[in-house]
Formats: sequence, C-alpha cells, structure tokens
Amino acid sequence: MKIILNDGTVRECESKAEELHVIRHTAAHIMAQAIRRLFPHAIFAYGPANEKGFYYDVDLGETKLTDADLVNIEKEMKKITKENLPIKPFTLPRDEAIALMESRGEKYKVEHIGDLDDDAVISFYQQGDYIDMCVGPHLCYTKALKAFKILKLSGAYWKNDKNNKMLTRINGVAFANQEELDAHLKILAEAEMRDHNKLGRDLEYFTTVDVIGQGLPVLLPKGSRVIQLLQRWVEDTEQKRGYLLTKTPLMAKRELYKISGHWDHYLDGMFIMGDPNDETKECFALRPMTCPFQYQVFLNKKRSYRDLPMRLGETSTLFRNEDSGEMHGLIRVRQFTISEGHLILRPDQLAEEFKGCLELAKYCLETVGLWEDCTFRFSQWDPNRTDKYEGTPEQWNEAQEIMGKLLDDIGLDYEIGIDEAAFYGPKLDIQCKNVFGKEDTIVTIQIDMLLAKKFGMEYVDSNNQMVTPYIIHRTSLGCYERTLALILEKYAGALPLWLSPTQAVIIPINSDCEEYCNGVMEKMDALGMRVEVDTRNETMGKKIREAQLQKIPYVIVVGNNEIESGTVSLRARGGVDCGSMTVEEMTNKLLLEIATKKR
Amino acid sequence: MKIILNDGTVRECESKAEELHVIRHTAAHIMAQAIRRLFPHAIFAYGPANEKGFYYDVDLGETKLTDADLVNIEKEMKKITKENLPIKPFTLPRDEAIALMESRGEKYKVEHIGDLDDDAVISFYQQGDYIDMCVGPHLCYTKALKAFKILKLSGAYWKNDKNNKMLTRINGVAFANQEELDAHLKILAEAEMRDHNKLGRDLEYFTTVDVIGQGLPVLLPKGSRVIQLLQRWVEDTEQKRGYLLTKTPLMAKRELYKISGHWDHYLDGMFIMGDPNDETKECFALRPMTCPFQYQVFLNKKRSYRDLPMRLGETSTLFRNEDSGEMHGLIRVRQFTISEGHLILRPDQLAEEFKGCLELAKYCLETVGLWEDCTFRFSQWDPNRTDKYEGTPEQWNEAQEIMGKLLDDIGLDYEIGIDEAAFYGPKLDIQCKNVFGKEDTIVTIQIDMLLAKKFGMEYVDSNNQMVTPYIIHRTSLGCYERTLALILEKYAGALPLWLSPTQAVIIPINSDCEEYCNGVMEKMDALGMRVEVDTRNETMGKKIREAQLQKIPYVIVVGNNEIESGTVSLRARGGVDCGSMTVEEMTNKLLLEIATKKR
Repeated sequence: MKIILNDGTVRECESKAEELHVIRHTAAHIMAQAIRRLFPHAIFAYGPANEKGFYYDVDLGETKLTDADLVNIEKEMKKITKENLPIKPFTLPRDEAIALMESRGEKYKVEHIGDLDDDAVISFYQQGDYIDMCVGPHLCYTKALKAFKILKLSGAYWKNDKNNKMLTRINGVAFANQEELDAHLKILAEAEMRDHNKLGRDLEYFTTVDVIGQGLPVLLPKGSRVIQLLQRWVEDTEQKRGYLLTKTPLMAKRELYKISGHWDHYLDGMFIMGDPNDETKECFALRPMTCPFQYQVFLNKKRSYRDLPMRLGETSTLFRNEDSGEMHGLIRVRQFTISEGHLILRPDQLAEEFKGCLELAKYCLETVGLWEDCTFRFSQWDPNRTDKYEGTPEQWNEAQEIMGKLLDDIGLDYEIGIDEAAFYGPKLDIQCKNVFGKEDTIVTIQIDMLLAKKFGMEYVDSNNQMVTPYIIHRTSLGCYERTLALILEKYAGALPLWLSPTQAVIIPINSDCEEYCNGVMEKMDALGMRVEVDTRNETMGKKIREAQLQKIPYVIVVGNNEIESGTVSLRARGGVDCGSMTVEEMTNKLLLEIATKKR
Repeated sequence: MKIILNDGTVRECESKAEELHVIRHTAAHIMAQAIRRLFPHAIFAYGPANEKGFYYDVDLGETKLTDADLVNIEKEMKKITKENLPIKPFTLPRDEAIALMESRGEKYKVEHIGDLDDDAVISFYQQGDYIDMCVGPHLCYTKALKAFKILKLSGAYWKNDKNNKMLTRINGVAFANQEELDAHLKILAEAEMRDHNKLGRDLEYFTTVDVIGQGLPVLLPKGSRVIQLLQRWVEDTEQKRGYLLTKTPLMAKRELYKISGHWDHYLDGMFIMGDPNDETKECFALRPMTCPFQYQVFLNKKRSYRDLPMRLGETSTLFRNEDSGEMHGLIRVRQFTISEGHLILRPDQLAEEFKGCLELAKYCLETVGLWEDCTFRFSQWDPNRTDKYEGTPEQWNEAQEIMGKLLDDIGLDYEIGIDEAAFYGPKLDIQCKNVFGKEDTIVTIQIDMLLAKKFGMEYVDSNNQMVTPYIIHRTSLGCYERTLALILEKYAGALPLWLSPTQAVIIPINSDCEEYCNGVMEKMDALGMRVEVDTRNETMGKKIREAQLQKIPYVIVVGNNEIESGTVSLRARGGVDCGSMTVEEMTNKLLLEIATKKR
C-alpha cells in the first residue's frame, strides 16, 4: 500500500502496523472533512490514530450530536472516498501556518502551533477543500480508505485538562479491508456483551451514583453476595493453610506512614484527613496498603524463631486517591477490598513459603477460572530512579536476585518490568486481561527486605540473637471487586453455580402446584441453596425466558405430573433439558456441583 | 454523722449520699495535706469528690510519683487522721483570699478566684497548717475519716484543656466504714479482672498502637476470629429472615451528605478529606452512618409496592471523629463495624416489621448472653432545639406517636430520653452496662419519616400512585467491637465454645502419643473445630495451667491408656473432669455445644 510523506515522497508501507496507522489517521482526516461539510461551524482539536482505531475531538459549539448524526457522518465519509480526492502535503513557515489556520477559524490548531518551537516548519495535508495540520504520512487518495466504521461519541477536555473546555470526541475504527473490519466489529460486539461495566449494571450486580463519586461503586445484593461467597471461601482456604486472621484499622496518623515510607513515596496516592503540613495537629490518612498495620500484630509481643513462619491474612479494605479519568467499573476504583496478607519468615523459610503463596494464588485463580488467562511479570526497580525507591542498590540487587532464582526454580514463564516494583521491593505480578484486552494486575507476591527494619521487627533466633525477618507481601485472589468484574466478563454473567446469587428458580405450572414448590424450596434452603419460587401471574414461557436473561443456572418446573410422581423437571442454563428426577436426585446433583465449585 | 458548713454551722448529714460526698471530699483535703507534707513543692489545682470516689490534680513540677509514693501518701493520711485535727472553715473577701493563696504559692487557686464574681466572699477550710479554698461542707475532725484507699495515678490537663499543663491526678475512694470500703474494693477488683481493656489485651484479642492513633484498635488473630464468627452468624441470620446483603462505599462526596443532612447536622463528627469550604474542588467524607449509601440500592430502579418490605443488611464499617478523651478500649472507638440495615416499608408493614427488628435484636443479644443486662430508652427530640433536628414538629409528633404506640403494644419497659433522638427521627436504644457500670447503647431501632423524602425515594402503590415509603434504621447486634468488649467482660474472657478462638487443646502425655493426637486434631478440624496440639517440651501440668489461663474451653489429654482404648480424656474449663470417652463421643458432645451456641 502506497503512502505519502509530508515532504511529498511516496513509498510502500513498511509493516502491517504502519499500514493500519496510516489508514486510521487518513480516516480521521476524512471524518473531519465530512463533519466540516455537515457542520460548517465545527472547530477541530486533536485527531490521532491509536491501537483501538481513531478519533477526532471537535468543538461543535452548542450542537449536540445524536446517533443519527453519526450515521450521516459515515455516509458523507463514504461519499468523500468515492470522490477519490488526492491527499497532498505542503509545508509553511510558522507565521504563515498561523495565518492559514486563523483564516479558517481553527483556534485549537493555532494554540497548538504556539506550543511548537519558534523555527518549526509546519506541514499540512489537503484533500479537496479540507486542510489539516499534520505530520503524516497519509494514504495518497481518499478512495484508498476501504473499510471503516464510526463507533461512538464521548467527551474529552482540550489537552486532557479539566479546566479546559469539554469537546465532543467522535470515535471510529478502520482496517485495510471489509473482512478485517467485520472480524473486529464481531469481537467488539462480543466484548461489549461481556463488558462487566454494562452487564454488571444490567444484571444488578453494582451501580454508581454521582453524589457518592467516581470509583466508589455501590454493590447491589447480587454483587454483595458473590463477594461474600468469595471472601468466606478465601478466608477459610487461608485458615486451612495456617494463616492467622487479622482485622486492622483502615486509617492511621501520619506518623505511621512516615515510618513505613508511604508519606515520602505515596502521599499523592492517599486520602488525607487534616492538613498534612501542620505538624501541630493530628493528621490521619486512609490506608493504601495493609503492611504497616498488619506488622503491628507481629510487634505485639516478643517473637521467637519457633513462632515463624507467621502467616497473617486479612480481608482488607484499601483506598487509593486515583484520578477521576482512571476509573473503570469495578476494575479501577478508589476503594476496594482485597485478600491481603504478610508472611513473616526466617531466611530458611523464604523459598518454600514463596512457592506456597504462588500455589495458593494458582488454586484460587484456577477455581474461579481466571488462571488460564494469566501472564506473569517480574517487576523490578529502576536503578536510575533511586528517589522513587527505599533502600540501597545492594539491598535491591539481593532481593531481586533471590526472587529471580525462586521464579526460575519454579519455572514460571515471566516477563521483566523495569521501574514497576513497589517502593520497598520487587514483585511478581500476575496479570489478567479484561474483555477489551486491557491488562490489569490481579495478584502480586512481593519480597520485602526493608520494611521489617524500619518497624524494628525482630525475632530471637536459635542462637539467642535478635534477627530481622524476611517478609512476603501477597494476596490469594486479589481485589474482590476486580475479580468479580473479570469473572462476570469471563462467563458473560453466567457465573458457576457455587457463585450464582440465585442458584435456581422454581416455577409452578399452575397455582395448585405452589405448595409443592414451596416444599422443594424449603428443602433446598435447608441445604444452603439460594432458591426462589416464581409465583407471579405470568406465563411459564415468560418466567423461563426471564430466568435465562438473569443467567440463573437452573429452572425447576413443577406441574401435576411431577407432584404425582414426587419429581421435578430440571432445566439447566442455556435451555438444556436435564429431564425429570426426584427432588433428592436434583438436590444431590446441585450439591455436588456446588461442593466441587464446578465451572 | 456531723458535718461543718462553711459558715461554721454544725449539723447531722441529711442523707447517705451527702455523707458519702462529705467523707470523700474530706478525704481529698487530707490527701492534699499528706502530699504537702511529703512534697512541699506541690501546687494544688482541683480536688473534688464524685460518684466513683475522689481525686486531686496536683502540679508536682519535675517529680514523677511511683506506686511506692502512693503507699507513703496513704500512710501519711492515716497519721493525719490519728492526729485528729479539727477541720474549721473561715471566709475572706476576694483581695485577701488572693493574698493568702499567693503567699502559699497556690497559683491555680489564685487563677480560680480570678474566675469568680468580683464581690464573691470566699471560704476556706483549715486542718492543722493545711488550708484549702473550699465551699464545704466537711467532717468536723480528721479522725472522722475512717475508711479510705488511694487507688491509682493518672494525668489530667488543668481545666481539662489540652493547651494547658498536664497535672498529676491522684485517685482514691472513701467510705463510712471499713466493711463498705472492702466490699467496694472487691467489686473493683472483680471489675478490673473482667475489664475488656485489660483482659482483651492480656489474652491477645486486641492492642492499640500510638503511631496508628487512639480509638483505632488493632484486632489480633483471636479478636478477629470472634468478630468473623459473629459477622457470619448475623449475616446468615439476616439472610434467613429475608434480608438482602449490600456492600456500599465507605466514603462519598460532600454532595451526598448535603442531601442527607449530615453536612448540616453532623459535620463535626465526620472525617473530611479536602477543604469542606472550597466548593470548586471535590471533597470527600468518611461515612458516619450507612443510611444515605444503602438508600441508593433502593433507588437503583423503579420500585413497586410488591417489592416491599425491602430489608437491606450490611456488615458496615463506620467512622466517627470523636475526641481523644472519649476513647475507651473497644467500646468507644473512631472506626467500627456494625450489622447495619434499613427496612423500606409500606405504612401497613411498619408495626410488624418494627416488631421483627426488635425480635431479631433480642435473638442476637440473647444468644451472646447480653439481653439479660439490657435496658430500653425511647429517645425523642427536644422541641426547644429545632436547629439540631430535621423536619417539622408535626412530623416529629407523628413519628414519636407511632413509635410510642408500637413500644406500648409490645409492652416494653422503657425510659424516655429527651433530646437523644437521631437528627432525622426517634430511636429505641437498647442499653448495656460495661463492667464499670457505664451504660452504652448496643442496639438502636429508629423510625425515619424524613430521609426517604430528601432522597426522592418512592414506590408505585396498588393505585398506581407514587408514594414515599417509611424507613426503619436498625442493627441486629450493634458494633462488633463493642459486642466483643461486652462479652469479654460478661464471661471474664471465658467465651462460650462456639465463639472461642481456640476451642480445645490436645495434650499428649509423651511424644509417643503425638501421632494419635494429630489424628484426633485432624478429625476435629474436618468437623470445623479450632483445635491445637501442644507438643512443646513442657510438663503436662504447665500445659494444662496455660490452657486455663488462656480460658480455652476444653483440654483433651491423651496417654497410652487412651490410645489402647481408642478414647480421650476430656477436661472442661474450670478444671471440670468430664472423664474418658471415645473420640466420637467427645466430638459429638462438642458439636452439640457449638451448634446450640450454648453459654
């Protein structure tokens, strides 16, 4: 595919990636041209291509675009490609560039030129009467754009600064041909169907409320139930593995964070109550991590080598003062609850306990079905950015060497991330992709050789010497909110039976069957199952359809035949007919599925 | 008993209460005289009598008192009573009073006189060479003080203002005779033995840490386990009674609290993040109550009369910005977790649901053993302080009338507390005394006819009209921290089996028995019991003693005889020998005790 550079040179694309970028960038220009034709008062800000497609931020004054406008813009773009206009670059010195843009009312482009160097030579591309400032390269003719789609509207501040004007962002995507575009749109549709941020709201797992704030989701009864089930299971799993449960405060005075180093290295990420600079008054901060709090449990009395390993676990709520723009559903939030824990260890226990942590995370992630989607990242410090990290290069090298050896011994297939460590030590990050392909950390296991010293944590070893222990920071399943989001996406809302907020709906064929249904419900209830009887005055077809829309695992239908034979008729999610069986056969089947946490 | 008034009149005491007050006040003077003899540089501030005894706040300069000093002070007091000095009042005009106190170096008394009216005539009492400014009355001779005890040292700011100097407070108690004093000291010793603030630390249920802050207890593994057990039990109990679980954010923007009224009526009690007065920036506050958060669950979609009653429950963490001086162990804290919930109701459901709430609280409090110590308070608004409360007199009268009728119908024996309502409605407060006799609210059930309107909560009734629901605010068991404190005191640390962090210790008589012990532990573990095997190299006597000091419900002893006969030897707390039995008999016995939550 031929492309034209801003000096007028024409050459073949050097890679598929370059091709996609040029196609999308040309699509942005053609979209702008179409917008200008339909809305002559439009003023254009930035309009780049990226890995997701392209967009243009436009100032449309008082005009609010509708979905119908997007259809019209797409039609106009098709017209422009048919016109097959040549796309040609030219350059101007700074003054003339400013004059040209001013003459066309492009005030954002003028401001942008003002940000460039004084001696900059500025390039433009023209197609028909549309001129855009641009470094290129572009396709050579508008007809070379063969497959594109306008996707949606959103808003964005000029220069991403919330003190500036909110502009209209029009998002689209483009590919080299229709087949590739169709394939992509299919993936997008599938992803949107699974998107927890839509599905989780539609199925009433959670909601958000303007007056509460961004990144502070309200978990509705269904979401709260799943998180309760996950938390109890993780707490019980940890208890079986010798963890001691703790419950430590969610806030502390600045003095604690000064010892831990959070005050120096993490202040911007914390919610502060009071004036952080006024040392004469108490100043509290919400905790962003559990470490300095849980360490107090170890510090509560004198410890000996016989007390180690000490494995401490907590269902811990944390707070991070993230920017509003960073928030996303249940995945990126300002308050979350995590299965947090710290292992306090003798040196001879480090390797085995590290393996134990990894094994526990694997068990937890495998059980909920996320392990198969995970990748691993060995996050290290950046020796050139010592201001960001506590400790000496020697300490970092030692910790990273120990951790690297552990990871290699285990045979984990990891990538290395420089400058991604915690400020106190290196991390193993277990990464999981959400449905849109964005990767987030779900579990981390960290080796910390610094904080124990800062807090004066020591134990008496077998030679009666005071020794500083090693510490592993770790989680078993990560943040419960994020895990809920990822499993909602993984299963498209059809959660495994053991996690389903409602496990079965019992439908009486007529009102004479209600008593029998209530009896079945009571039996299931006594066995700890979450069951409802649907006695509404609706058709059976409607009741079954609604149960399926609600992704309820089982529908139990009871008519006169079932009552006579003491059976029920069982239908699994997805319309699978499991046939007739006795109540006991049915409950045994479901109990086994729950007990084995079948996926 | 004869007493002398500050005009020199001598008369008989008019009541037992007056007698006790005069005895204790005289004891304070005699203690001051003793301190002056032993520490001539002592300067005296306030030294009143109260219902607990008496104290004197003293400025001792650099001198730090020890327990040995207290013994000496008490000895000196005995000497003074033996000297049988007459105690005589005299009065002086203001100027001369100041001159007298200045001549004796009593700068705090001088400052106090400065606070009195210009024309005040000031009275003094003198015994030997000791003169104290005092309104009296007093005993007539020092020998009339017959039974007293110095109890402890503490600190107090002059005039209770933390900007002033910290003084030494010396606390004592006095009675009419030795028998009454002994009885009181016995009660005190018993209370101290049960005091959760000591016992809970000694038994490692919780601790506090200076750098975290006051009122922010760290729950150690034992305390965390009890709270976990209580929380799960309450959540499950509520689930059985038709409650829906929620999990709502712990903080919100100021805008939410402006709607709820907390911003106007509760701002001082909240922890604020950001500048509350800068409306241009986001300002968050930690929640002091769950109401405005849980209401969002109702507001998530359109509701009909068929959806009601909607019973919402949450294991909810709350934050209250209390003064440092108010903090007490686990009973008065700045952060706590509570079984919070709201019932959203049609008018015809109010009476039955209110009864249901009371019945649930009774079941919960009875199960943990606190119901028998509870009293009831019907907390109403103060019609003369309308600024403190939301709503009109009509609304308050209606709510209080409804609630009063409900309480009378139930036949609850309550007291009325004026000006003790929540700012949005009247409350039933269930009060429980701690071991020192201080009463605290453990459960409240409130009727709210105001907040639903503020949040625009409505449902469609059977006539297709939009109607504002009634709301009941309530808790089942109150704050878990406070409940833990009260049950630690109630049982003096010997918690019922189902709540004990460790339920049994298995002791092998020799190392040959360890394998059998481990087998017993595994069986008990599989049945969900919390059991340890004590394999330390210590004598059996010591192991049993330690288990008793730790208040562990059962000790299971295994020797060769037990192994041969496949039995265990069971000892209950308090040294009760339950005899030999098979492992299954033993586990059945314990399982029944756990399942029935036996006290």
